[in-house]
Amino acid sequence: MRDVAVIGVGMHKFGKFLDLGIKDLGRVAIWNAIKDANIDPRDIECAYVGNAMAGLITGQECIRGQLVLREAGIGGIPVVNVENACASSSTSFREAYLMVAFGLYDVALAVGVEKLYCGDTATSIKAMASASDVETMGNMGFQFTANYAMGMKTYMAERGLTREHLAKITVKNKYHGSLNPYAQYQKPMTIEEVLNSRMVADPLTLYMCSTMGDGAAAVILCSAEKARKYTSKALVYVVSSDLAMSRFTDPRKPAASSGDDEGPGANELAVKAYEKTGIGPEDIDVVEVHDAMAPAEIQHYESLGFVKKDDIAKVIEEKQTWIHGDMPFNSSGGLAARGHPVGATGAAQVIELVWQLRGEAGPRQVKGRMGRGPKVGMAQNNGGRTEDGSAVTSIIIVKR
Amino acid sequence: MRDVAVIGVGMHKFGKFLDLGIKDLGRVAIWNAIKDANIDPRDIECAYVGNAMAGLITGQECIRGQLVLREAGIGGIPVVNVENACASSSTSFREAYLMVAFGLYDVALAVGVEKLYCGDTATSIKAMASASDVETMGNMGFQFTANYAMGMKTYMAERGLTREHLAKITVKNKYHGSLNPYAQYQKPMTIEEVLNSRMVADPLTLYMCSTMGDGAAAVILCSAEKARKYTSKALVYVVSSDLAMSRFTDPRKPAASSGDDEGPGANELAVKAYEKTGIGPEDIDVVEVHDAMAPAEIQHYESLGFVKKDDIAKVIEEKQTWIHGDMPFNSSGGLAARGHPVGATGAAQVIELVWQLRGEAGPRQVKGRMGRGPKVGMAQNNGGRTEDGSAVTSIIIVKR
Repeated sequence: MRDVAVIGVGMHKFGKFLDLGIKDLGRVAIWNAIKDANIDPRDIECAYVGNAMAGLITGQECIRGQLVLREAGIGGIPVVNVENACASSSTSFREAYLMVAFGLYDVALAVGVEKLYCGDTATSIKAMASASDVETMGNMGFQFTANYAMGMKTYMAERGLTREHLAKITVKNKYHGSLNPYAQYQKPMTIEEVLNSRMVADPLTLYMCSTMGDGAAAVILCSAEKARKYTSKALVYVVSSDLAMSRFTDPRKPAASSGDDEGPGANELAVKAYEKTGIGPEDIDVVEVHDAMAPAEIQHYESLGFVKKDDIAKVIEEKQTWIHGDMPFNSSGGLAARGHPVGATGAAQVIELVWQLRGEAGPRQVKGRMGRGPKVGMAQNNGGRTEDGSAVTSIIIVKR
Repeated sequence: MRDVAVIGVGMHKFGKFLDLGIKDLGRVAIWNAIKDANIDPRDIECAYVGNAMAGLITGQECIRGQLVLREAGIGGIPVVNVENACASSSTSFREAYLMVAFGLYDVALAVGVEKLYCGDTATSIKAMASASDVETMGNMGFQFTANYAMGMKTYMAERGLTREHLAKITVKNKYHGSLNPYAQYQKPMTIEEVLNSRMVADPLTLYMCSTMGDGAAAVILCSAEKARKYTSKALVYVVSSDLAMSRFTDPRKPAASSGDDEGPGANELAVKAYEKTGIGPEDIDVVEVHDAMAPAEIQHYESLGFVKKDDIAKVIEEKQTWIHGDMPFNSSGGLAARGHPVGATGAAQVIELVWQLRGEAGPRQVKGRMGRGPKVGMAQNNGGRTEDGSAVTSIIIVKR
């Protein structure tokens, strides 16, 4: 496999855009990436387009990627439309990366786009429930909030965590989001506001849960040898991009669903990535994780090997995962504040890392280990839920 | 890239199965492939699952592949859900093939599954229209029959073709389908029956058009070096599997839509495959093409380089593309008779070729060039339609 660089990234702001469709959102993100890469779009050789739910919102299935690309003025290239629920565009990123790494193409485009606000909440909720098995969980009201809440009290008790700790994660991410012009929510929030918001599924209050959103994110990947043909910006290389299902057990013995079942999967994938790359948590300057609910971020402190079980409470209290702390998590605001237009989230995580590694993150710029400027970023994403668990992805990028 | 073999193929019969869902259909196809490959399903390392429209029929988006696999008892492996309209499972086949060819996995599963009959024709039609841009063509009633009919009279006049020639293609495919136990339609048909059926879009009568269907097809791909660990059957190797968009022109100058716009795309892709493999039409024993409407098959006689423009009428009159002719096309019955459960068609084409190359096609077995037994098969598939054209795929497999 050959070296692959990210040469261009672009987003459409996440938010509620009732008058925009996936074509509009996608076009803006793609052209921001094209301009960022300084590339003639005719040099893009293939596209992997992640979208999770537009079929149920817009009625458009089958060729969503082609239509988004066409709106951006790009045609005549192979397009693969990819779905994997909340991991749709970390999956499209992985597929595009592999095609360049294996030498099939020199330049590949990975897109994530989503449209969830449609003026009818019932339609939006039905669409989001399609990330679970609609014949069982989805149609029975077993929503993701309930799923995340399950088992959480035991998890918290074992680590000495209180509801205040969960609220502090939300407060951190809302603060980070307030510094991110692409974030859906740019208003800081207090612990009291988080704790006093409506209870959704004990121990999760409203503001501990990510909401739905509209948005798009696009990443242009290029073989390392050709990258300098386009951009003069700092080059960021993909050193690892993997996909798995969260349960690595005998598939014919599915375990009962529980709130923390992504943990072992994310952990196994991270350990493999560390072994493959020689990079460990101590080398990583900035991390984006899938905080669909506040406790999920905490679980990934542990699953990715950054924090030991008994130190989690202390790490939260000492604000170590804030942008000015030792190990910044979700500098973008994460799903809680940047927002969670499902199919766009995975690619947006990569974009935040690229901006941080290039030193382009503005007021939320992290300093990197020992203040040397960030060199290594990691993204953890997951999506969907069956009784076999979730899709999980792990991406590590480095600035050289 | 290393050699990749098809070690197992399996189908669920195509047809109208109101009481079966995508899980049921997929499970049967997957297990038929597992049994055919003589493989422990735990040796399957990844899956690419193609489906085009189940979101609009069943409400299930996001994780259709994971749910189908789970129903088959397979979990814990990376799953990528792939959409590309009628080319969904030729695309999932291509992605799975590339992963094995590039050495990321030794064993990969490619699935195509579709569920279109749902007891409500309006819902099914709306789902099928999502293979075009629902904002323009789809919702304006510009259905695929109309699209195929456009420009057809000029095309036919230039080649001396009459409506009888089109009808003869349908008659051939209905006859082939009558010999295929997996075909949706197994009843032969006369030229008169085809010509006298209801006019849908001049010159296309009802029986010249493929219908909708339910069904599934699964293919297990394996690195050549490990293939003999599993199967003792004749090994069939993938020598070429490509994906493109049908218009290779400047994407910012889209041409007007016309009935034969897949031709140039299919031609360019075939020529590339011939150059890459050193195989030419004269070497190919059996061909599956995307005869969504009867004239599409004729167009591909020409686009794939089998028949020159002026010889098409003669080739049809001499029955050269029947199973006992010199160049059998759609020995399976094609979309006209095997049926066209959209997302399952591409993989089903490959399966027919594998059966033919292994000599397992029973009463519809082709003899191969010079009666030496078929050694080389080609599949051409396409899917969806934007103003930029269709996705087109080309696959060549050989028995060594």
